[in-house]
Amino acid sequence: MFKRETKNFINIDPLQTGGILTKEARETLMEWGDGYSICDFCQGRLDEIKTPPIYNFVHNDLPKFLGCDVARVTNGAREGKFIVMHSLALKTVKDAYVILDGNAHYSSYVAAERANLKVVEVPKTDYPDFRINVDTYAETIEETKKKGEVILSLLTYPDGNYGNLPNAKAIAKVCHEYDIPLLLNCAYAIGRMPVKMDKIDADFIVGSGHKSMAASGPIGVLGMKEDYAELVLRKSDKYKNKEVELLGCTARGATIMTLIASFPHVKKRVKDWDREVEKARWFAKKMEELEIVQLGDKPHNHDLMFFHAENLYEISRRVKGGRFFLYRELKAKKIHGIKPGLTRYFKLSTYMVPKEDLKYVLETFKEIIAKYLKGIKS
Amino acid sequence: MFKRETKNFINIDPLQTGGILTKEARETLMEWGDGYSICDFCQGRLDEIKTPPIYNFVHNDLPKFLGCDVARVTNGAREGKFIVMHSLALKTVKDAYVILDGNAHYSSYVAAERANLKVVEVPKTDYPDFRINVDTYAETIEETKKKGEVILSLLTYPDGNYGNLPNAKAIAKVCHEYDIPLLLNCAYAIGRMPVKMDKIDADFIVGSGHKSMAASGPIGVLGMKEDYAELVLRKSDKYKNKEVELLGCTARGATIMTLIASFPHVKKRVKDWDREVEKARWFAKKMEELEIVQLGDKPHNHDLMFFHAENLYEISRRVKGGRFFLYRELKAKKIHGIKPGLTRYFKLSTYMVPKEDLKYVLETFKEIIAKYLKGIKS
Repeated sequence: MFKRETKNFINIDPLQTGGILTKEARETLMEWGDGYSICDFCQGRLDEIKTPPIYNFVHNDLPKFLGCDVARVTNGAREGKFIVMHSLALKTVKDAYVILDGNAHYSSYVAAERANLKVVEVPKTDYPDFRINVDTYAETIEETKKKGEVILSLLTYPDGNYGNLPNAKAIAKVCHEYDIPLLLNCAYAIGRMPVKMDKIDADFIVGSGHKSMAASGPIGVLGMKEDYAELVLRKSDKYKNKEVELLGCTARGATIMTLIASFPHVKKRVKDWDREVEKARWFAKKMEELEIVQLGDKPHNHDLMFFHAENLYEISRRVKGGRFFLYRELKAKKIHGIKPGLTRYFKLSTYMVPKEDLKYVLETFKEIIAKYLKGIKS
Repeated sequence: MFKRETKNFINIDPLQTGGILTKEARETLMEWGDGYSICDFCQGRLDEIKTPPIYNFVHNDLPKFLGCDVARVTNGAREGKFIVMHSLALKTVKDAYVILDGNAHYSSYVAAERANLKVVEVPKTDYPDFRINVDTYAETIEETKKKGEVILSLLTYPDGNYGNLPNAKAIAKVCHEYDIPLLLNCAYAIGRMPVKMDKIDADFIVGSGHKSMAASGPIGVLGMKEDYAELVLRKSDKYKNKEVELLGCTARGATIMTLIASFPHVKKRVKDWDREVEKARWFAKKMEELEIVQLGDKPHNHDLMFFHAENLYEISRRVKGGRFFLYRELKAKKIHGIKPGLTRYFKLSTYMVPKEDLKYVLETFKEIIAKYLKGIKS
């Protein structure tokens, strides 16, 4: 078997901290791992399976959790975004536009490309905040509407680079003033922090099971207002109960069972969000004492943080092996999550990482800096 | 944890016999179950990950196994079909056609609908063969071409109802005479029986990991001729290494690791295909001794078989509880795989089911018939 080298490392990879399985999800993988096991008693559609209790999860628990009218499970957040864009594109002439915030994940852009939509991005503010402002969002819509039809706006909440949380409610209001629906990409929110589509008054919401809901991927969730269900979940003209955009069924495997298995834990953990934010802020403060500056929203409101380390960059320019020294040092200390080769700018996440482990991470950064600065000076 | 009731049953469900995990795949789920675990050392694209060895699997092992130039891993066979159809549709005017064989899976139809393509089906022959003939395929293309542009033909090899294996090579030849590419849906072939795209001279091939490659789903494989790679795997105009139709990455989770873990076993087991066919034929013969008639290709060439049981139907019309008696009786004997409520027509699979277990299944059918016929007569 291929061993996972980093399995017992301290994990500060933003992509991974929210996707570590619960004990229940791990047991579930053993029970439901076989291909199509969940289809034992299927009557024709994934979300309607009663045994195991997928129906109850998709039609009761999930809409309540997302604050939406109608929900489905998808193969991931990006697949959810494409489902929405591809459906809305049906109603338009050619060359319609999607507005994306300037911090959008690449997959939002690619989903729009796949749906043959044009993309306009809302500019973010410059270093060091990289913020998406409501006014700029409004101006971008205004300008784009002059060029053509805008069928959807998307907001990344928070984004995956800086962990910034823009004013989603105000942006939703702006979008609706222009009669444009808003899709929230909450891949880093749903399952980590409290977020409800209806409170923000968005029209669509997507989340990621493997990124933030302690599930084995690929799996995602999609929520929407009732008004859009008929279009987005339109049925096949020949196979009357099959939803076209979902190709009949999406996460037809153990992935959905791990999502369900972790769900009670996930519902509980979002309530501890304040403590996670407090811990993130504490970590950022300690990093800044090492002259590693946290960028983006400040004080920060999310566990995903972006740092600027001029000192580590200086070291990388002088040491043997160059920019990979930081990765090697962290690996030697069994810390995983900062991409190999990065030193000057990098992101990390403190989500669900015990404070003791974070202290060890901070201590390690301190030691690395001391060791190499000494080396450079001597 | 939600227990899987049927886990230790004898499994003759066609959807499931080829998807039962190997020991290696099961261990892999424990090692790689966490969300995005496979992305530890990702440089930006799933198929290029070297650790774990996804690159080697996707770019070396898989194309060789499928007999194609270029391969990718998808979220499933249906997702692979949509990827191909959606890409080819880019090159056409509106209202282009896809030709499907009359035994096509519903998801082939739905994938075409999702890609906004019109569908014409090649009629199958009547009871009891339900065959797709080469001449009928050619006639259907001929007729459809009069109505509009045909951008793709699809052949289900074998189909999921009767387990029929049409003359794919001859059909490929016909399609090419009309300059139409052929997509083989091999969800029930790849991983069970030897099949090579190049030997059939098809242009695309899709398979299902959870259906026939002992993988935990949803996961599929897609192979194609080099000629089509530029279009189908076209890159994003902004994110230069991201493949648009794959939304950047597809099976970004433990699913791909189970596919890789089971692959050595899968490569080996397809070599035992003759024995599987022989066992299926033996089973069909024994069923016919109970007056349960096997439909479709005869002698049969696949483990997936469709049966017609007039005697069980007669019983269902007379017994208390009606058409669910068969399901209940099989369940009491710990046999899973015939859909609840079916008696007159049903499908099953003998794939990888030990002969001893099949004897027990046959014995059970015999006992059920004897018991109820006696009940009816008395």
